[in-house]
Amino acid sequence: MSELRDFARRTPSWLTRAADQSSIVLSSRVRLARNIRGWTFPHATDADRLCGLRDEVFGAVLRDSPLVSARRLLMEDLEELELGFLRERNMISSDLARFVLGRGLVLAEDESLSLMVNEEDHIRIQALAPGLDPSGCLGRASGLSRALESSLGFAFDQRLGYLTACPTNVGTGMRASALMHLPALVLTGDLQRVLNSLRRLDFTVRGTYGEGSGAMGALFQVSNSATLGQSEDDIVGQLLAHAGKVADCERRAREALITRDRVRLEDRIWRAMGRLTHARLLSTREALDALSDLQLGHALGVLPATEGVDDWDEVNELLLEIQGAHLQISEGRSMEAPERDELRATLIRQRIAGTDEGK
Amino acid sequence: MSELRDFARRTPSWLTRAADQSSIVLSSRVRLARNIRGWTFPHATDADRLCGLRDEVFGAVLRDSPLVSARRLLMEDLEELELGFLRERNMISSDLARFVLGRGLVLAEDESLSLMVNEEDHIRIQALAPGLDPSGCLGRASGLSRALESSLGFAFDQRLGYLTACPTNVGTGMRASALMHLPALVLTGDLQRVLNSLRRLDFTVRGTYGEGSGAMGALFQVSNSATLGQSEDDIVGQLLAHAGKVADCERRAREALITRDRVRLEDRIWRAMGRLTHARLLSTREALDALSDLQLGHALGVLPATEGVDDWDEVNELLLEIQGAHLQISEGRSMEAPERDELRATLIRQRIAGTDEGK
Repeated sequence: MSELRDFARRTPSWLTRAADQSSIVLSSRVRLARNIRGWTFPHATDADRLCGLRDEVFGAVLRDSPLVSARRLLMEDLEELELGFLRERNMISSDLARFVLGRGLVLAEDESLSLMVNEEDHIRIQALAPGLDPSGCLGRASGLSRALESSLGFAFDQRLGYLTACPTNVGTGMRASALMHLPALVLTGDLQRVLNSLRRLDFTVRGTYGEGSGAMGALFQVSNSATLGQSEDDIVGQLLAHAGKVADCERRAREALITRDRVRLEDRIWRAMGRLTHARLLSTREALDALSDLQLGHALGVLPATEGVDDWDEVNELLLEIQGAHLQISEGRSMEAPERDELRATLIRQRIAGTDEGK
Repeated sequence: MSELRDFARRTPSWLTRAADQSSIVLSSRVRLARNIRGWTFPHATDADRLCGLRDEVFGAVLRDSPLVSARRLLMEDLEELELGFLRERNMISSDLARFVLGRGLVLAEDESLSLMVNEEDHIRIQALAPGLDPSGCLGRASGLSRALESSLGFAFDQRLGYLTACPTNVGTGMRASALMHLPALVLTGDLQRVLNSLRRLDFTVRGTYGEGSGAMGALFQVSNSATLGQSEDDIVGQLLAHAGKVADCERRAREALITRDRVRLEDRIWRAMGRLTHARLLSTREALDALSDLQLGHALGVLPATEGVDDWDEVNELLLEIQGAHLQISEGRSMEAPERDELRATLIRQRIAGTDEGK
């Protein structure tokens, strides 16, 4: 369990506050799906061959790639809690946590770049950046893809593009997404309208934890659905445009909230502060929702600016740290839900106290 | 409206913390119903004669009684808000606030002794004391009754005792009650059992605001139902015994709560503190319920003892001050509900801040 503890103590680079729009777009992500020519897709490959393929990929990473000094993890060596931890950090998918044999992860220390081996495809490259920066992500992901392609050789069709296990990924094999904080759209009830119009544009919106307006912490992933017949730059351009429009809607909803009923909004935000600084037991959902209200209050100037913006970066970091596996990894032992709720409340109280000037 | 504003700024003597049991029994009250010989009961008397009778009673009070220097109020002279204010302070009944013509109130400055004229009976004497002290109340109420009897002459039957408009009050005309704070019995769900056993003993229990376990602030009035065939001292003795037993049940329920699940109880209490110190809008119900949790936390030592017990007396005082008419009387103007909720939250925040060391 100790191997991942230093990750738990660090904030991933993509969660640091970006200068631009970061109170609405927390981070961007580009994922590239790649498969190695001459090998069957993972779901049709036995364990021995999966392990062999993983060796090949790890070897290629070590020979020459931006991940040459990154952490390499064999999924079957990890404990349940470590898998949960990587899952909470969005470094692996739920599939990779479930089917571990022959699966692997290569992970840059700052978590800006990673690579899953033998998930749905042989290789899934993931690049992350703070704020709305899909082209930065694409640059890094493509760099890694090129480095590996020269030594591994990817399945590629002149007409179709990159071949993938699932037809929806054929073409660029690329998904670009933005992690957005949309509390005002949730509160005004305008969220559904915005999501529906995105869907008509072939974009998908998912609650990061939970679906629709019930999503915890008002956190949503906005991403492209189509990969075929479009260039990588097309997709980047669309994400920039669509996420930008959603951010505009959120901004207008925030203005409407504060114009329409400022006291009720302030009440909501200060109550969230009261819960976070006083509760002795906090579930993940309640904590994420209250942290969301706090971030909204900070963005709207309802909560006083405290010494420097550092405190607010710490609030962002809590989004990861308060999750179940994170709490257990940093404590170095497994804990039942009530104990986690208590530890979560204690951690939040310590961290938030400095931002509370409510009384 | 100004005539009552100085009352709004003072704490009534019966709400000051008594040395004994006061965290469970807040105050005691004795009420004596009396009627003047030769006059019909108020419900069968026209306005002119009610006013005449009121003059007689006020005259008798002024001639020689413990209320000689007390405030004398004509109900029909009061504004709606002033009637509500006296109602919230338990100085008049809802009937006296509704049917004002010819009705009156004589009220000691410290509110320990008062007299309603032409409520259901011609005279209703009320004595209040902090803590569990029905015999102290009875002493003062009887003193006033004797002083008035000599000059007014009360309707009295050798066999039945004092005659009253409603047969349930015939005899002593006395009701003795204790205002009890029973949050642990509400939380453990044992309240109903305790209330049922009191009812079998001819005692009544009413939520001070609202009924049963839905009573606001977990505040309950425990009082005798029977008045006939018992002496005043019998009733005092019964109230002492029954309220004492209920207090024991509450004490045991508190111990059970803290033994069974201390963290959950602490969570509840600290959350109440968080709401009271952070909310910008508070309804009467939410405020009373949260103040109840705070008092419980203080009694159980969950909340730290702050400098002196003064702060906690102030918490008690809030029980009156946060009510609607009180807020408006002390502001000197009438306010709609949302504005009251805001003022209530502000008042509580200012008052409670000193007791909050939660973070």
